[in-house]
Formats: sequence, C-alpha cells, structure tokens
Amino acid sequence: MKNKLFFFCLFTFCTIAAFAQEALFDSNNINSPVINADGSVTFKLFAPKAIKVEITGDFLPKIIKDGDESEGIAELHEKNNGVWTYTSKPLSAELYSYKFKVNGMDYLDPANIYINRDIATYTNIFIVTKDRGDKGNLYSVNEVPHGNVSKIWYESPTLKMHRRMTVYTPAGYDKGKKYPVLYLLHGAGGDEDAWTTLGRAAQIMDNLIACGKAKPMIVVMPNGNLDYQAAPGAWSKGMYKPMFKGDGASKEIASMDESFPDIINYIEKNYHILKDKSNRAICGLSMGGGHSFAISKRYPNMFDYVGLFSAALFMKGNDPQSSDIQEMQKDKQFNIQLAKQFNARPRLYFIGIGNTDFLYKTNADYRKYLDIHSYKYEYMETDGGHIWRNWRIYLTHYAQEIFK
Amino acid sequence: MKNKLFFFCLFTFCTIAAFAQEALFDSNNINSPVINADGSVTFKLFAPKAIKVEITGDFLPKIIKDGDESEGIAELHEKNNGVWTYTSKPLSAELYSYKFKVNGMDYLDPANIYINRDIATYTNIFIVTKDRGDKGNLYSVNEVPHGNVSKIWYESPTLKMHRRMTVYTPAGYDKGKKYPVLYLLHGAGGDEDAWTTLGRAAQIMDNLIACGKAKPMIVVMPNGNLDYQAAPGAWSKGMYKPMFKGDGASKEIASMDESFPDIINYIEKNYHILKDKSNRAICGLSMGGGHSFAISKRYPNMFDYVGLFSAALFMKGNDPQSSDIQEMQKDKQFNIQLAKQFNARPRLYFIGIGNTDFLYKTNADYRKYLDIHSYKYEYMETDGGHIWRNWRIYLTHYAQEIFK
Repeated sequence: MKNKLFFFCLFTFCTIAAFAQEALFDSNNINSPVINADGSVTFKLFAPKAIKVEITGDFLPKIIKDGDESEGIAELHEKNNGVWTYTSKPLSAELYSYKFKVNGMDYLDPANIYINRDIATYTNIFIVTKDRGDKGNLYSVNEVPHGNVSKIWYESPTLKMHRRMTVYTPAGYDKGKKYPVLYLLHGAGGDEDAWTTLGRAAQIMDNLIACGKAKPMIVVMPNGNLDYQAAPGAWSKGMYKPMFKGDGASKEIASMDESFPDIINYIEKNYHILKDKSNRAICGLSMGGGHSFAISKRYPNMFDYVGLFSAALFMKGNDPQSSDIQEMQKDKQFNIQLAKQFNARPRLYFIGIGNTDFLYKTNADYRKYLDIHSYKYEYMETDGGHIWRNWRIYLTHYAQEIFK
Repeated sequence: MKNKLFFFCLFTFCTIAAFAQEALFDSNNINSPVINADGSVTFKLFAPKAIKVEITGDFLPKIIKDGDESEGIAELHEKNNGVWTYTSKPLSAELYSYKFKVNGMDYLDPANIYINRDIATYTNIFIVTKDRGDKGNLYSVNEVPHGNVSKIWYESPTLKMHRRMTVYTPAGYDKGKKYPVLYLLHGAGGDEDAWTTLGRAAQIMDNLIACGKAKPMIVVMPNGNLDYQAAPGAWSKGMYKPMFKGDGASKEIASMDESFPDIINYIEKNYHILKDKSNRAICGLSMGGGHSFAISKRYPNMFDYVGLFSAALFMKGNDPQSSDIQEMQKDKQFNIQLAKQFNARPRLYFIGIGNTDFLYKTNADYRKYLDIHSYKYEYMETDGGHIWRNWRIYLTHYAQEIFK
C-alpha cells in the first residue's frame, strides 16, 4: 500500500504541470486564466465595447497610499477583436483569487467556472503549482484516493435546533476501521461550507493522508453561527443575506462551548470513531479559533490537540485591542480553567497568526500569559493578515502534527 | 408522527410568504431580487456608469422573430443614484433563472448569491411561491426534516476507475431502517452535482417525504460521463472545461448499462437497502433518460419503476430525428429485450417530455412502438422544451408514484 501511495504522489507531480498549462476554460473561445510555464498567468476577457478593463486579486502587490493598504489592481489591454489581456509576473505556488473590473464594475471571469463565495461575495480562483508538495499541489485535486464529503443534519438538544454540518471521511472509511476526529471551525461570516471551499480542507486532507504525512482522520466542520441552522440557502430561513456576524448580534440560547457536546455525541454515535482524548483534536480560525479556545478550556479532558488560527480571544464588544494581560491574571475562573487544561497536558497547543493580523495583539498578550505560567504551546507566525491563505497553511501544518 | 409532519407542512406555507417578500440580498445596499406581494419581482443593479442595462431570464416571454425563438429580454431603467430597476409581471410559482446584461455583456446579479451552473455558465436563481404545495414551495428549503447529501467515491471495476456520485439519504436514515433506492441520472453536459443544484432533488424529496406524498427513499445520483471520474474541479483531470458531451466523443471502455451494476453493488453494500426489484427505481433526463432506458432493458428484473424524462433514444450519430418505428420493429435484440422487460411487468414505465422538445419525435416513435406491442406506460406531456423546469416536474410526479 505504501508503494502504491508513493506512486500516486509521484504521478501527481508529473501531471500537475500539464494541467496547469492546459487551457482552462472557454467563453466566446476565450481561455482564461492560462497558467504559463514560468508561473506567470494570462487573463483574457472578451469585452468589445468596454472603455476600461482591470483585474484585482491577491496575486497582485497591494497598493499602499497615505498609509492605507488596498488590493492590487492592474489594467488589461485590448489587442484586437475586443479581447482584453493581462499577464502577471511569475507567481509562487498558491491558490489565488481575482475579479475583473469592467468600466469600474466588479465582473467575474465568464471563462472560469471556479469561484469561491466569501460571505456574500464571489471571486474566481486559480491554482499555481510548481513543485512536488508545494502549496498549490496540496490545494489541488490530485490522483490520490479521495475522502467523501457529506452535508449532515443533526439535532442539538442544547440549542433546541436541527443543524447542518460538513463531515469528511477519509478514503477507505467504508472498510470499517475506527478513526480519530478533527473538529474544524470556521470564522464569523462563514458557515459549514467554508473550510471545504475557501479552505480546501478535503484536498489538503486527501493529499496529506495519501502521502502518509497525516493520519487518516474524520474531519467535522459544524456551523458556528448559533442562531442559524445552516449555510445560506440550506435551511428554511432560506435565502437570508450572508453577512459578517459577530457574537454581539447573536440571540443564541447557549454558547458554542456549552452546545459543543451535542456535535461530539452525534459524531461518536454515527461514525466509526476512536473515542478518547488522544484521538480528538479541535482547531478553528478567527471566531472558530475563539470557539476552539473556549471549548477546549471548558472540557479540559476532551482534546489532546488544540489549534488557534488567528483566534478571536478575550475581545470586549468586538474590540480586538481590548485584551489585557493584567485582566487575564485577575480572572479567577479563567486561571482555574486554563490550569486544569494545561495540567491535563495536551499534546499540542498550537497558535498561528499573520504578522499584520488585526488580532495580533490579543494573541501576543495571550502568549505572554501562557509564557508566564510556563504553559507549553507551539507558535507559527506567517506573513500577511486575517486571510484564508494563512488558515490553509495552519491547517496543513496542524493536520500533520495531530494523532501521532 | 403524522400529526407532526402535518404541522411541519402547515408551518411551511405560513412562513413562505414572509421569506419570499423579505429583502433577499445586499450589495452596495441594493436588495435584488425582491419578490413582491403580487408575485411580481423587482430587480436592481447599481451601475452608475452603464449606458444600457438589460435582464434576460426564463421568466420573460420568449422572443420569436423570423421563426427563431430566443430568450426574453427587458430593459432596466435608471431612476437616480445609478440604480437601475426592472419589475416583472406577476409570476406563477416556479424556480426562475436570470442574468443582467450591462452594455451588452452578461453580468451576474452581485446582490444575489444564489446561482446555478449549467455546464459552463452561471445564472442567478430565485423562487416564487404562492400556495401550499405549489412548485415554488416544493423547490424551496422548508421547515421540514432534511435528508443528508453526500459526495461519495466508489470503485467501478468495469470502468477500471474511481468515480464520484451524490447520495441523498432521507431524514431519519441514521435510525437504522432499510430503504428503497431511486437511481437518478443526469444529461449530457451535466454531472453528479446537477440534480441537487439545477434539479432541486434534495428539496423535492425532503418536501414530498415530509408531507407523506413520497416514501422515504435513498436517491443515488451517479456521473454519467464515463470518461470522467467526477464533476469539474472534483477530480485530478482537475479544472477541465465543462462542455456538452454526446456519447460520440466518448472513449469509455464499457457502456453505462454494462457498468451500472458497479454502482448498485456499492450502494447495496454500504447503505441500509431493500434489495428487491420492487424497491429499485431508475429515471433520468435526456442522456440519462437514454441510460435509464438501456439499463432497465438490459436488466429486466432489476427495476420495477422506470422513468424516461425527455429521453435521448435510438439516435444515430446524435441525430434526434433518426428514430424509425420500422427499424425498431426489425431490430431482433431490441424486440427480445423489451419483451423480456415488459413480460416481467414493471409497475411503472413513465415517459415525460415537453411539447417543443427537440427529442419529441423520437419519443413519439417509441410510444408508437410500445402501443403496437401493448406495453403499458404512463405518459406526461408538458409545455416547453428540453429544460430543467420540465425535469423538476417529472421528478416531482415520478417520486410520488414509486415504491407504493
């Protein structure tokens, strides 16, 4: 089996260049985007009557003006026949997103069916891959065994609701073995679909498991918006408007940490699960990092692995600057709970954050607190802010560290 | 339990008007579309620099010019502040699709996150509901118990491939009962995602089952493109260009009917299934109707229920006009197989087609053949052509007729 997997992995990296260079899509006989051999990317749009066509995206250098940062933008040029073109600089391996602007209006690339929704906005995506095991490769669907992804309805007695979650079961799951479980939580504005779309969680897990870098595991992605049953369009309050939703706006009858055992109970009853602490991990981004912090603190003997990705911690009234190390020290219940959790010796307490993240300070304060108490944790600091690019990196790292 | 379900159904129809009138989405503080109390729909687009803004969609009357039919189109008008507006006539209950055109270029409504992909093109969707049990209501997510929808990888030994399918398990499935299975097949250009997006299959099944109009059943939606493992973006040939793909372009090593037992074997091994003929149904649209015809003919004792929706039958070289009743009569194997199938007395052999469908003649010829041989079938003819609106109607009808 090991040999077979190695073959899969090899095969993957041989074919990826071909797929990257392949003309991807078609609209009015336009192929866009086309990833060139040097990693540059050519975008095309048929817009014969347009006056100005631009492209914005996270592959372009950010624009800094008067101290404010805004997304990079570049102009496409019309060569002939109404086809506007732009070729980027060679790009490093990554999943990128972009949009056109036609006469100033945001415009999805009609030649590219690959899009992601982030809260209420769509952007096109593309992946650049150069080497075996690079990020682009890890986020791609490769010729490896694939896990199944299910949208599951479960009952939450604590919240008195039926709720929806996404469950990834690894390739080979139907053969009856028992598996460890990673609970993977989204941020405010997200939902139970976010980690499998923006986060590429199924691809990351498929690829890491196929190459033996991660243990086969079940990944459970619940909905962290406690007033909502499910993602927009998936429940009867129907086609509500997705929006960024902090805890302040919430009317829930119980907190995420109070209600979390409902999820664990459903999963452990309905899946082939290893049910001890050493086979349970939790992590999440932003609000989901805050949830992972609160849940693991409340149940100190539940998780051997905890991951906080750009976590929203200790904020008062949603103010990210309101954390205070003195206050943490004074909070009796907080000190008792954390002492219990760390005395139970979690095998991994991971903190990841971008160096320009607006939650950097609160996480730095929390790290200071952990240092004072000699509570062990692993820390990863990456470039950039509060963005999916970072959360995919943290998941990739964390998934390789757990259940070992 | 019956009372509870009735309550669900009642509740549904009380809330639906509120949801329909609710402002749906937001972009630059624009709500679009808004479904008005009389069933008319108001569309808005913020486009301050546009010269012309139009809307096309299946809710507008088709334009007939020189004998050719094209999609209806209407102009939006700018009132002030760059907001362009159009209000439709009152619409009957249905799921509709639309797109804007800004200065002649197709443009998705940025205020509406609800979109469907049909082959390589996205359109926005909205649902109009007026009465209890109307089509809009059946296609909506209502406050009823929901089934789970899973993307499953299985092995096809006949095709020597791992392949992906969508499996719907009804609400309550996890309680351990055994269920009948409906195999639901898509058309050329479609994939294993099509019935749950364009076809609203999960909503139709949830709603019919909740009101007791359909038996709880498992619905299996495989991929009918035999060269492909999965939908675009879901397998390693990765981000291939979706296109309409007739059987002629195919290089498969076995036919859909030859390889179909691989799917049944996987389902019957991995789900709680009633495994006799009276608990198996098959149906499909267009190419999938042709597949349902061929599979049920090849295995005469496998299905008690067969449904052909706008089925592609007997075409030579993809010519829909090439069917010939004399030829059917002369084809020995064809006659023997159909005689076997009908002698095994299927409980339902359903044929549905639109009165302007380009496959109307071939289906009429086939009905003549069935009439000559006194093979019983049920026939439904609806308005319109080769469109999802009709296939949703046929599924709704067929799902209520099977397993009774």
